[in-house]
Amino acid sequence: MYLSDKPTAIANVKISDAFWGGYQKLIRESVLPYQWEALNDRIADADRSGCIHNFLIAAGRKQGEHYGWYFQDSDLYKWIEAVAYVLEAGNDDALREEADWVIRLMEEAQRPDGYLDTFYQVAHPGEEWTCLREYHELYCAGHLIEAAVAYSNATGDDRLLGVATRFADLIMERFGDGDEQCKGYPGHEELELALVKLSEKTGNQEYADLAAHFVYQRGTEPNYFKEELKRDPTTRYPWGDGPLAGMRYFQADRPVTQQERAYGHAVRACYFYSGIADVARINRDDTLRGVARRMFDNVSEKQMYVTGAIGSSGYGEAFTYDYDLPNDSVYGETCASIALAFFARRMLQMEGDSRYADVMERAIYNTALAGMSLSGTNFFYVNPLEIDPETLPYDYYKKHVLPQRPKWYGCACCPPNIARLVSSISQYAYLENSDAAKINLFIGGSAVLPVSGFRFDVETDYPWNGNVTVRIRESRGGKLFLRMPDWCPEASVEVNGKVLTPKTEKGYFVLDGLREGDVIRYSMQMPVRRVRAFEKVKENAGCVAIQRGPVVYCAEEVDNGKELYNLYLPQDARFDVEWREDLLGGVNVIRTGAVRLTSVSEALYCYDEVPEKREQPLMLIPYFRWNNRGIGEMRVYLKEDVL
Amino acid sequence: MYLSDKPTAIANVKISDAFWGGYQKLIRESVLPYQWEALNDRIADADRSGCIHNFLIAAGRKQGEHYGWYFQDSDLYKWIEAVAYVLEAGNDDALREEADWVIRLMEEAQRPDGYLDTFYQVAHPGEEWTCLREYHELYCAGHLIEAAVAYSNATGDDRLLGVATRFADLIMERFGDGDEQCKGYPGHEELELALVKLSEKTGNQEYADLAAHFVYQRGTEPNYFKEELKRDPTTRYPWGDGPLAGMRYFQADRPVTQQERAYGHAVRACYFYSGIADVARINRDDTLRGVARRMFDNVSEKQMYVTGAIGSSGYGEAFTYDYDLPNDSVYGETCASIALAFFARRMLQMEGDSRYADVMERAIYNTALAGMSLSGTNFFYVNPLEIDPETLPYDYYKKHVLPQRPKWYGCACCPPNIARLVSSISQYAYLENSDAAKINLFIGGSAVLPVSGFRFDVETDYPWNGNVTVRIRESRGGKLFLRMPDWCPEASVEVNGKVLTPKTEKGYFVLDGLREGDVIRYSMQMPVRRVRAFEKVKENAGCVAIQRGPVVYCAEEVDNGKELYNLYLPQDARFDVEWREDLLGGVNVIRTGAVRLTSVSEALYCYDEVPEKREQPLMLIPYFRWNNRGIGEMRVYLKEDVL
Repeated sequence: MYLSDKPTAIANVKISDAFWGGYQKLIRESVLPYQWEALNDRIADADRSGCIHNFLIAAGRKQGEHYGWYFQDSDLYKWIEAVAYVLEAGNDDALREEADWVIRLMEEAQRPDGYLDTFYQVAHPGEEWTCLREYHELYCAGHLIEAAVAYSNATGDDRLLGVATRFADLIMERFGDGDEQCKGYPGHEELELALVKLSEKTGNQEYADLAAHFVYQRGTEPNYFKEELKRDPTTRYPWGDGPLAGMRYFQADRPVTQQERAYGHAVRACYFYSGIADVARINRDDTLRGVARRMFDNVSEKQMYVTGAIGSSGYGEAFTYDYDLPNDSVYGETCASIALAFFARRMLQMEGDSRYADVMERAIYNTALAGMSLSGTNFFYVNPLEIDPETLPYDYYKKHVLPQRPKWYGCACCPPNIARLVSSISQYAYLENSDAAKINLFIGGSAVLPVSGFRFDVETDYPWNGNVTVRIRESRGGKLFLRMPDWCPEASVEVNGKVLTPKTEKGYFVLDGLREGDVIRYSMQMPVRRVRAFEKVKENAGCVAIQRGPVVYCAEEVDNGKELYNLYLPQDARFDVEWREDLLGGVNVIRTGAVRLTSVSEALYCYDEVPEKREQPLMLIPYFRWNNRGIGEMRVYLKEDVL
Repeated sequence: MYLSDKPTAIANVKISDAFWGGYQKLIRESVLPYQWEALNDRIADADRSGCIHNFLIAAGRKQGEHYGWYFQDSDLYKWIEAVAYVLEAGNDDALREEADWVIRLMEEAQRPDGYLDTFYQVAHPGEEWTCLREYHELYCAGHLIEAAVAYSNATGDDRLLGVATRFADLIMERFGDGDEQCKGYPGHEELELALVKLSEKTGNQEYADLAAHFVYQRGTEPNYFKEELKRDPTTRYPWGDGPLAGMRYFQADRPVTQQERAYGHAVRACYFYSGIADVARINRDDTLRGVARRMFDNVSEKQMYVTGAIGSSGYGEAFTYDYDLPNDSVYGETCASIALAFFARRMLQMEGDSRYADVMERAIYNTALAGMSLSGTNFFYVNPLEIDPETLPYDYYKKHVLPQRPKWYGCACCPPNIARLVSSISQYAYLENSDAAKINLFIGGSAVLPVSGFRFDVETDYPWNGNVTVRIRESRGGKLFLRMPDWCPEASVEVNGKVLTPKTEKGYFVLDGLREGDVIRYSMQMPVRRVRAFEKVKENAGCVAIQRGPVVYCAEEVDNGKELYNLYLPQDARFDVEWREDLLGGVNVIRTGAVRLTSVSEALYCYDEVPEKREQPLMLIPYFRWNNRGIGEMRVYLKEDVL
């Protein structure tokens, strides 16, 4: 059975808890205004964006040369999308004004035939569509569409949707199976999922058909990208025959149906798989559903860090091989974990199994949030699980790993991606169909779910404890699904003070016959847990990660001293959880004791002498808040006493 | 006090034990003939050398283009040097014939003004001396001189010495402090130590003075290499401002007196430091002596692997920072360990402290020998202490690490370097001055040491056990020094069946008053030892290396299964040593028991479940014989039970 669970409109959900309410306030009041300044090149000491500058030139309002990457336009589109979510959740006059101004600019910049891409319009007119593999026209088009759909949903203003559909129609004319049509497909996937969104928004199935075409066309023979390469052999992407290079980087080495596991650039891959899941869902396509399941299983069961990071190689920002999860040289791009959350939610919509929500939650609460500083002004691309800042300048092979979040990147894909994820978090929390409402993430606030007929309020301090109270405000008597997280060893449900033993389905408790006024108390035990990786994960042999609820913890130098690799967790270590209102915006810390090994002499090598063992207290903080107190060592995986 | 201990002539030492006798036979009968074929481009399925081809063109005997690296000439020079050592130790008509033929060719190739470098003569005439930084004219000149001195010593034939001195004289004319002279110095050090050799061979102090000039001139302002770079900014070497790049790569960022630690390309560095030690020794230069000591201390106490490998970064084949000793991504070039042996022997000659011999022995018995296959036909450049061959194709950052020794390299510096080291091993075993003979390495055979007045025979199965019998055949009554190795916890000395308690000096037992017919039995206890690295060596925290005598051991997959990282050595593990005549050319293996951790489920992550522990036998083989039984995992450092 294909489920078609859908999120409710963002306008229908009010988020009021400290955790997500706080993040959304940060996005609204700091991150998006800051990013607007960045897009306008007004942040001192940060890499220049050039984004608005390029649109001004394309619109004829300014003279000059294109600045920045060939995908720079997409930073604006993602910003608009995030702004749209903010506007849908409430009002923000300043953001609305900026968005309206820039949409006008985009209308002016769009060519009469619908084409819109400042890189080609300003810097390479006449060369459009000549290098789909290397450049990002179709990728940017996808982000344009996502922004336009969101903006229309939020404001009812369809100007941007007009821009997007005109471009989509041009693409539809140009690409397809027809004799005269181009047989190419996006060099960086994204348009596929966007076209499904546009199809669902407009009711025009043709957009979904084009998405399906792109999915199936990819990697077929004659290989379109290789043909392009014959015409112009210059390339900036990892090339050659290695498993990290060539067509595999693009997921274009073979047709999608023959791809047995996830490989290549991780963001590309998960955007692709999201599009595959979308097409599978709306077209009831068993073949693509099988591909999507296979890819999800491979990523989540063999190539994902405990933090939900994916893409372990800095070379190609790519998946590598099963169980290759180095902690210090990892790429683990913030965008890739966001893409994994996109993919997981789509699988969840189609399959309804809470294990997809487990992965979604892991990626969101750990790596996606770690991408941004507490101040909302500094961002990580790369999310290591272990860092020694002093040694980084000497390690050419970790040159992608930074010891602190920079203000902005010339290639700024991650910051606006965090913004659009956080501002649309309710879309990940609730799904519904005509029979049931499903609570996947636990967020304090209120929600209206019109398809399932529910309205309810939620109170919780999640993720700091596992108690969730749901007050039913309206009900048609449909089912309410409460997710049973993978990290939770035991949970109980009370309705109106009475303990129930609800039936379970696909990893959810299922409550039936709820009525207005019912109060549900859902208590998930949230012990500190030792997480161990499978024996084939070489880097984690003999190590544990510490997790409580969805939150993975880490040790920082500021709390525990240097040389964190010399700390060992005894087998009988006990863990105390302590709420620290004053620390890192308010977090639960975990306290325990470790044993530090120190050498008995300063000789580089000593014979037979056993290291000294000294007990020391160990304090762990949530990984997603690391590096907010200066530069220092950090480790997620701690060594433990194994024998 | 400056010692001036010297090795005796190679002709004075007969090596007859199975270990070094076997290696020398291999060099003589297989390696050098094989390398001759390689230099002549007659090895199928191996990288082409082009070496002789280039000389044939330079000599006008052949038409064609220069092939291979700009330092290709040095491969021939190192081959000739090794051949000279073989010839000095005995006769070999075939090698002599080839060497004589090729020396004739070199005479023909040399320009009338003394210049000899086929890269410039054939491919870039007129551009000589324009890019000392990048190209290797002065480096090749150094190897030419070393070969010429060795060949003259071995055969009395001074034709090649004529070639070398003509080239050296040209260089002396061109380089120096004079107003008209070039202020440059070698881009790759080597000429410095060679000029000292030439000075000692010819008695001409001017060559030593030029060596001193090059040492002191290096890195002074205005920086010669930077001036070159202004003229032509193309560069193939790691550039930029990072600590692994720019002038540091060349040890040319500042004057030698201001260099506080070892950095840059490891082979360059240790050739440089060898030259510094040579100049210090023959010029009684306290400043350079201090530099040499400082560099030796830094390398051996902070930047050296337990195998004697040095240069931990593949990027720049370079030293990085103190205690940075990753086992799997290490470069650890064979040539760098050979260079370290050169450096250590020079320090030993000047300082007389056995700790220099300890490092020399470690580098020779482990990494230098590991560079060559048992067959003598395959060679490692890079010497990892840990390898997982299946994962290498996916790891861009370990692309320098190979899972097996190739037949020959286009850049073939290491194979002939091993050949010249092994064929001159007696120069590392014995040093002498007018008062004393010193036994540094324990090798079965006989030695004549005319300066100290000794002649003796040595019987030993070293390195397989620590028993050494020395029979005095002639003595003037001088002192005999027996090295007390760092790995040896206890040793005893008997003379003519009587246990002595000899006095000790700088890490040697000193025997006095020996006479013809005396029989010394030197018994070094050789237990299996657990070697632990200093606490700042991150990668080895919680690990031990196993060493017996000078031999570091490793675990190979063929003996112990896959996933060697899941094996733990219990604290009470006992070690049994077993002689295996049939294995790997005859080796002692070490047997013990390990505990293998395995996951209780195949889930990527599991909560709170403790891995299963299964005991399994563990067999270790000498590291220097690894990878002679096919491709598989290997580890030097084993995890151990620490708490």
